[in-house]
Amino acid sequence: MNTLIDNLNWRYATKKFDTTKRLKEDDLTTLLEVLRLAPSAYGLQPFKVLVIDNPSIREQLKSKSYGQPQITDASHLIVLCSYLDVKDSHIDEHILNTATTRGIDANLLVGYGDFMKRTINNFDSEQKLVWNGKQVYLALGQLIHAAAQMHVDAAPMEGFDPLGYDEVLNLKAQNLHATVVCALGYRSEDDATQHFKKVRKAKSTIIEII
Amino acid sequence: MNTLIDNLNWRYATKKFDTTKRLKEDDLTTLLEVLRLAPSAYGLQPFKVLVIDNPSIREQLKSKSYGQPQITDASHLIVLCSYLDVKDSHIDEHILNTATTRGIDANLLVGYGDFMKRTINNFDSEQKLVWNGKQVYLALGQLIHAAAQMHVDAAPMEGFDPLGYDEVLNLKAQNLHATVVCALGYRSEDDATQHFKKVRKAKSTIIEII
Repeated sequence: MNTLIDNLNWRYATKKFDTTKRLKEDDLTTLLEVLRLAPSAYGLQPFKVLVIDNPSIREQLKSKSYGQPQITDASHLIVLCSYLDVKDSHIDEHILNTATTRGIDANLLVGYGDFMKRTINNFDSEQKLVWNGKQVYLALGQLIHAAAQMHVDAAPMEGFDPLGYDEVLNLKAQNLHATVVCALGYRSEDDATQHFKKVRKAKSTIIEII
Repeated sequence: MNTLIDNLNWRYATKKFDTTKRLKEDDLTTLLEVLRLAPSAYGLQPFKVLVIDNPSIREQLKSKSYGQPQITDASHLIVLCSYLDVKDSHIDEHILNTATTRGIDANLLVGYGDFMKRTINNFDSEQKLVWNGKQVYLALGQLIHAAAQMHVDAAPMEGFDPLGYDEVLNLKAQNLHATVVCALGYRSEDDATQHFKKVRKAKSTIIEII
């Protein structure tokens, strides 16, 4: 159809990474910038991106991921963490950042901040976590898309023990919760799954014009 | 930094669309294909993409969206709907689609189907909805990213009444729930917000290498 779509067809959930290949520093920088630029509700970015480089920590995380080899074998491992809680102080920081970035008086944004606080404080703690988690998945979608366009392989993974991750990475004390994981690198030639035909619903099943 | 990042910096949550400009048919086709190709947990794609073309339905949806003008003014309105429930029959259909697409005997996939059923049937109805919703946000992330790369403007929107949407679009009877909305089209020259500097957390705040 076109290059953008060809690249999405090129990608697949990589099962086996080439352990000898590492992402170029420039490519990693681009992919992290994609995450940083991802939009989020009210622009609050209620998440943190952890890049796990330390091999011994990756081994520990592998044991919390049903032993899946991508955790240690991929060039880079990204753990996307939601905020456990969104606090008034986060909104104040965002308002201050907005005022500073745009060179305006923060006092002019007090009403907008109060509006966000009212909305978010209406959520219970479970609803906040769900809401934050959705923003993380939006960012993950952008990461996977960008990686495909750059022909970097990605394995998005839900198959891990989030509380185990929280423990290994000491996340709870930082108001964080491991939401989803993405291994990045280059497919191994031996990964047979790269040759499997992509399975998707037919256009007529998943899309409807009203 | 590079074109991909430049395009993400070019995008913004469009507040005012040019009502005279419509997406090219090819571009719409590409963006819908991006949604169809989005990865999802187990490849189940527990969502449906509604493209709302009918002006009178868009007026009704606007009244369920705090009157936000993007709902009617954008070239196209996409409503991303999660499945309310993931049923065993959905997994059976996915297994059959996998077998057909890859030319293998569906009987060989029975064990994998049973594994998925066990996992998903462990979720209560709220957990299923949350899980499905996350897959929708991943797809939304890909849509926004692709639109930016194509210089199509997008306004992802959470500010609407999901139950109101469900009613207008008769979603509940179809096992669907309106999860998030994205208006697509071209920014109006008059949209002052396009000139606002993008506000994002500093790299050192949102990213940590461990």
